[in-house]
Amino acid sequence: MLIVPEREIADLMTREAAFDAVEKVFAAMAARDAYNFPVVREAIGHEDALYGFKGGFDQAGLTLGLKAGGYWPNNLEKRDLINHQSTVFLFDPDTGKAKAMVGGNLLTALRTAAASSVSIKHLARDDAKVIGMIGAGHQATFQLRAALEQRQFEKVIGWNYHPEMLPNIEKVATEAGLPFEAVKLDGMKEADVIISITSAFAPSLMADHVAPGTHIACMGTDTKGKQEVESALLAKASVFTDEVAQSISIGEAQHAVAEGLIKESDVGEIGAVINGTNPGRTSADQITLFDGTGVGLQDLAVAAAVVDLAVEKGIAIEVDF
Amino acid sequence: MLIVPEREIADLMTREAAFDAVEKVFAAMAARDAYNFPVVREAIGHEDALYGFKGGFDQAGLTLGLKAGGYWPNNLEKRDLINHQSTVFLFDPDTGKAKAMVGGNLLTALRTAAASSVSIKHLARDDAKVIGMIGAGHQATFQLRAALEQRQFEKVIGWNYHPEMLPNIEKVATEAGLPFEAVKLDGMKEADVIISITSAFAPSLMADHVAPGTHIACMGTDTKGKQEVESALLAKASVFTDEVAQSISIGEAQHAVAEGLIKESDVGEIGAVINGTNPGRTSADQITLFDGTGVGLQDLAVAAAVVDLAVEKGIAIEVDF
Repeated sequence: MLIVPEREIADLMTREAAFDAVEKVFAAMAARDAYNFPVVREAIGHEDALYGFKGGFDQAGLTLGLKAGGYWPNNLEKRDLINHQSTVFLFDPDTGKAKAMVGGNLLTALRTAAASSVSIKHLARDDAKVIGMIGAGHQATFQLRAALEQRQFEKVIGWNYHPEMLPNIEKVATEAGLPFEAVKLDGMKEADVIISITSAFAPSLMADHVAPGTHIACMGTDTKGKQEVESALLAKASVFTDEVAQSISIGEAQHAVAEGLIKESDVGEIGAVINGTNPGRTSADQITLFDGTGVGLQDLAVAAAVVDLAVEKGIAIEVDF
Repeated sequence: MLIVPEREIADLMTREAAFDAVEKVFAAMAARDAYNFPVVREAIGHEDALYGFKGGFDQAGLTLGLKAGGYWPNNLEKRDLINHQSTVFLFDPDTGKAKAMVGGNLLTALRTAAASSVSIKHLARDDAKVIGMIGAGHQATFQLRAALEQRQFEKVIGWNYHPEMLPNIEKVATEAGLPFEAVKLDGMKEADVIISITSAFAPSLMADHVAPGTHIACMGTDTKGKQEVESALLAKASVFTDEVAQSISIGEAQHAVAEGLIKESDVGEIGAVINGTNPGRTSADQITLFDGTGVGLQDLAVAAAVVDLAVEKGIAIEVDF
C-alpha cells in the first residue's frame, strides 16, 4: 500500500503529466475501455458539508478506485483549511486490494485545468492568439497556466463578477510574459479561446459576446441549476464534453437540452475527437464549446500518474497493509 | 491519518465491541441520527469482479466514510487470497479530511455476525434453548459464535445443502461445550432461534419448518433474486430489518413484498426495537424474523471501534497525510 500525502503533490505532479493522464483517459472513455460509476453526493447535515464518491474503472490503464471527499464551506474561516477536501484511493483491479492513497486537493485543480487544456489542444484554432478568462478565483489561475501551453497566445483578457480579483489571473499572464487586459463581457469578442470557470447560477457570457471561430471551455458547471453561458450559445456551437450523461444532466448543456435548443445527440465526446472518430473542429468559423463536467476517472488517472512519479523519486510512503 | 492493517484486526476486535458498535448504529439509524448513502455496486468487466462503495454518516457517533471493495471470485484459486476484499475509510466530519484506513475483511464477518446477534438479543425468547443453523460456510461459524453469547443455548442443530461442510459449525458448538446434531430442514421445528446464512437463490426453510415462538435471522440475502426462506414465512412472522428500503428491494423481504404477502409498512426497524419505540416480540408464540441486509454504517461503526482499540493499544500506524 502506497501513500502520497497532499504536501508532496506540488513537487511531484507536472501540468504535462496531468495533461497526458487526462487526455488518455478521455480517449479510453470514448473507446468504452473506461467508465465512471454513479456519483454519490450527499448533504450530510453537519458543517453544511457536501460529501461523496466519484469512482470508475479504466480497463485500458488498469486504474480502479474512487475520489472521496467534498466541500466543507466553514473550513477556511474556522480552521484555516481549504474548503474542498478530497482523497483518492486506488485499488488493484486484479485482486480488489487497496493499492494507494493520494491527497486529492491539488490534483483536482490540476485535472480540471488539464481537461480544458485537452479541449483547447483538440478544438481551438491553431492560430488562436487571444485567450479570455471568465472567473478569476483560485481555479482560474490553474486553468490559465495550463491553457497558455496549448497555443502561441499573445494576450490575455479577463472578466470577473468581482473585478478586484482580476489581479490573480493578471499575475499568471505577467509571469508568462503576456499583456493582460480587463474587459467587459462583450470584450470577449476579441478572444479566440475563452475559459469560463465560475460557480454561477446565471449566465455571464452571452451568444453575441462570442466571435465566430472561438473555442469556449465551460469548466464551472457541475450541479443542477448552475449556468455560465447563455444556452443560445450552445445552439450556435459544436458542443463537446467529457461525459455526455453528466453534460446534459448537471453540466452546462443541461439548460440548452431542457429548453429544446439542442439534443443529447448534439453533444460529442472529447475522447472521440482525441481518437479521431469525431472530426471535432471542421472550419475556421465554427464555434466549439467544451462542457467540462469533471469525472472520477480524471481523478484516478492523475492519482495513478502521481503514484508512479512518487515511486520513481522514492517519495511514496509504503505501509504494509 | 491512522492505519489499521487487516492482520491486526483479529487480535484487536472482540465480538463484544462489534456487537456494541452495531447495536448503537442500528439505534441511531432508527432515530434518524445516522443514514446510509446510495450503494454503488458495479460488475467491472475484469476478473469477474463486483466492486463498489457503501457509505454513510452517523451524526450521533460522528462517523463518516465508506467501505470500498467487493468480490473477486478468482482470488483464492489464482492467488491464495480471500475472494471478498474490502477496506474501510473514515473521514473527519468536521473537516472532510481522511482520518483512518482499516482492513475490512474480518470486520465484515464480525459486523454481519453482530447484526444477527443484536436481533437475537432483542427479539428471541429469553428461554431459547436450541439454535438451528442453515448454512455451514465461513460466515456461519462467525454467526454461531456470536449468537451463542446471547442466550443460554443447550444444543446446536444444523442443515447445509452440502452436508460435508457441517463439521465447520459442529466444531464451534463443541468448542462451546454444546451438543451438535445434523437435521433435515423440518428438524428445524426443534429450534428456538434459526440463523440462515447462505447465498441461495431459492428458499430452503419453509413456513411449516418453523415452530411458533421462533426467532429467525436471515443473513444471506443481499441481492435481487437471492432467497433463503419461503415468502409465506414472512407473512406469518413479525418482520424486522436493519434498513427497510434495502429489505424490500434486495433483502429477504423482496419476495414477500413482490408477491403482495406483506407491505413495506409491515417491516419494522430493529433500531426502533432497540430504542423501545417498537415493542418487538409481544408474545411467546410469535414468530419474529430479522432480515439482515447489511449496511455501510455497520462497517463504519466497527471500523471506528477498531481504530479506537488500535490507538489504545498503540498498534495504529500513524502517517502524516
